[in-house]
Amino acid sequence: MSENPLNDMGRAAREASHVLAELNTAERNALLERIAAELPAAEEAILAANAEDLAEAEASGLAPAMLDRLLLNEARLKALAADVRQVAGLHDPLGEVVDGHDCPSGLSLIRKRFPLGVVAAIYEARPNVTVDTAVLCLKTANAVILRGGKETRRSNAALVAALHLALAAEGLPRACVQAVLDPDRELVTALLHLDEHVDMLIPRGGPGLHRLCREQSRIPVITGGIGVCHIFVDAAVDTPKALAVIANAKTQRPSVCNAVETVLVHNRIAAAFLPALAAHLAPLGVTLHASENAAPYLSGALCPVVPLDPAWLDKEHLTLDLNVHVVADPDEAVAHIRAHGTGHSDAVLTEDMRTAELFIRRVDSAAVYVNASTRFTDGGQFGLGAEVAVSTQKLHARGPMALEALTTYKWIGRGAYTIRD
Amino acid sequence: MSENPLNDMGRAAREASHVLAELNTAERNALLERIAAELPAAEEAILAANAEDLAEAEASGLAPAMLDRLLLNEARLKALAADVRQVAGLHDPLGEVVDGHDCPSGLSLIRKRFPLGVVAAIYEARPNVTVDTAVLCLKTANAVILRGGKETRRSNAALVAALHLALAAEGLPRACVQAVLDPDRELVTALLHLDEHVDMLIPRGGPGLHRLCREQSRIPVITGGIGVCHIFVDAAVDTPKALAVIANAKTQRPSVCNAVETVLVHNRIAAAFLPALAAHLAPLGVTLHASENAAPYLSGALCPVVPLDPAWLDKEHLTLDLNVHVVADPDEAVAHIRAHGTGHSDAVLTEDMRTAELFIRRVDSAAVYVNASTRFTDGGQFGLGAEVAVSTQKLHARGPMALEALTTYKWIGRGAYTIRD
Repeated sequence: MSENPLNDMGRAAREASHVLAELNTAERNALLERIAAELPAAEEAILAANAEDLAEAEASGLAPAMLDRLLLNEARLKALAADVRQVAGLHDPLGEVVDGHDCPSGLSLIRKRFPLGVVAAIYEARPNVTVDTAVLCLKTANAVILRGGKETRRSNAALVAALHLALAAEGLPRACVQAVLDPDRELVTALLHLDEHVDMLIPRGGPGLHRLCREQSRIPVITGGIGVCHIFVDAAVDTPKALAVIANAKTQRPSVCNAVETVLVHNRIAAAFLPALAAHLAPLGVTLHASENAAPYLSGALCPVVPLDPAWLDKEHLTLDLNVHVVADPDEAVAHIRAHGTGHSDAVLTEDMRTAELFIRRVDSAAVYVNASTRFTDGGQFGLGAEVAVSTQKLHARGPMALEALTTYKWIGRGAYTIRD
Repeated sequence: MSENPLNDMGRAAREASHVLAELNTAERNALLERIAAELPAAEEAILAANAEDLAEAEASGLAPAMLDRLLLNEARLKALAADVRQVAGLHDPLGEVVDGHDCPSGLSLIRKRFPLGVVAAIYEARPNVTVDTAVLCLKTANAVILRGGKETRRSNAALVAALHLALAAEGLPRACVQAVLDPDRELVTALLHLDEHVDMLIPRGGPGLHRLCREQSRIPVITGGIGVCHIFVDAAVDTPKALAVIANAKTQRPSVCNAVETVLVHNRIAAAFLPALAAHLAPLGVTLHASENAAPYLSGALCPVVPLDPAWLDKEHLTLDLNVHVVADPDEAVAHIRAHGTGHSDAVLTEDMRTAELFIRRVDSAAVYVNASTRFTDGGQFGLGAEVAVSTQKLHARGPMALEALTTYKWIGRGAYTIRD
């Protein structure tokens, strides 16, 4: 077996994590304040590098929406620095005692929060993820290895250089934050096999990236971020309020993972509700994708209606497109969500307590809502202060991952030379 | 890509998990009581199957210690049924509200515990693991797919048949508990690729099995159970008490993962401590493996002493063999444990508060002990009531995994047709 080309990077990260683990809360927050100061100081170099990335992306024909995601400017850099200061102000989860008790053996036992050690992140597009992820890891005393998209590699290099200046100013090793900038795809595989040195892998990107990580990673991986989200409109519903929730869930920010993609309507109200939905969404620019059993109710609809290609039931639109489908009852709604959902965010709109409880119990998603928009699945909205990613798997962290998800615990047992009988 | 040969099994497990999720605590406990009754009722068939397994294993030349692990008899079956009743009596973690709060948006948020869904377990040797694992999964409303060792396949088939009788008696689908009995090794790979239907994989076996799972599994996997455990004897120590702790950690049950494998002795006391250790362990049948710097202190030792092959520093003896090595100070002890430990259980014996705190902070293991035996790392000793496995990875569950580790949580948000601004 040949040596992993990232082994040295992994070893250096592990050693740096030991240095970070010695810092107290104030020292780690001081580092974050230093980073917030270094980012505007390095503005010229960062924006120049970003301009080169943008020029290359434009020449390669990247879509305007994608170009906007790449863009850094003075205002965005200022906002990034403000975000870093906000993280510095968050509660430190390290050192928290989760629980504990004295055992009959005489052993006194506690579970206490410690850093994970080394975290790796693989992500695409937006260069601000470089700083966000690094800062959340440093806040929790984790070393981090970053692998951004090749289209932002110059921006990422400039941002990491600013982070290194801040680390140096605080007397900390550069290896607290490392980036795999070489665009060679083989290095992604190498990173996924660096389980000896990396404790957790966070992919942030599309379904292809998540599949790759699930199949190839030897590091425990937190998959998520893909949201085929549903709203089930029960027969017992306040229609005007339900329309407002659907409009919010679809149009408030259609490009994100917690936007709704499919509305399931109870058969008993479909004839009245679907035309009302079309009328409500028409001025918002939504196109309805009507399943065979929904289409008859939408013949005179006020918004554009196209036949639903069933393949869309299992994919994110991420646009102002919305699938509509009629179901016979709550059970059929649950069955539909089990078949097509991604375990992200699903909502029921109902006045019926029993339907609400059934939906909560049976829909196995990170976030399940009753009479609320799916758009709430977000660390900020949940009051967690920060968000590393949104997990749709069930181990370790589910839904919005905040600082706590970047920690582990140790069992600490204290005795008086205590032995087991 | 060809169809996974276990797909039908996975689908059936998922469907069964939905049925289990509808049961309340009393119904699940009633199922466990039924299992406890079916095991002695099926005694004849189980012991006959076990006798066949034993005969084949004996013919194939399996070591007596391994044969003993395979063996089921009336007393062991009775103990197994008693264990099942004990699990029935444990607190049910499902439905527990982890935390919650009202958000400024008006959303009322809680995190509540739910079953994981489908759990898979791959294990070797002892047939009682079949029942233990199935029962812990059923207690937490998870369906389970079991893959035991081929040497116990007849015993496992008979045990699963008894579990199926209990499921049928309670009107539950057989697919709540399924076993991959066909010894074809390809089916292990198929199971590891069943991520669409399985939520968590627990391997219980040697380092080879854990490596295979880490490399091949697409299912989130909890690795663990490998313990190269250390005790560091500081200079400031109560020697007679320290000797008793080491004797306990090595000899109370040497074949298990939380037994100590290496004792690190502070240089300042090595000349007195090492001969005393040899004298203390001699009547217990221990052989010391002395490193180059420890050997000079053991020339007249009362117990057998052999030169330490450095390869043993990274492996479990699981016998009455104990490595001894001298370190200059606590830092060198920590560095040794970082280089050779498996993150399982490590202890410091010291009267010095600062050394104790340094050890706790720097040794990154599931369980870290001060003045206590490493043998305590165990669900029963920790007061957790049950143990699915001992995790040495840092996500989801670390150390002894109890019922809580077989659950996940959902975020449940309730509003009044609440929308995001």
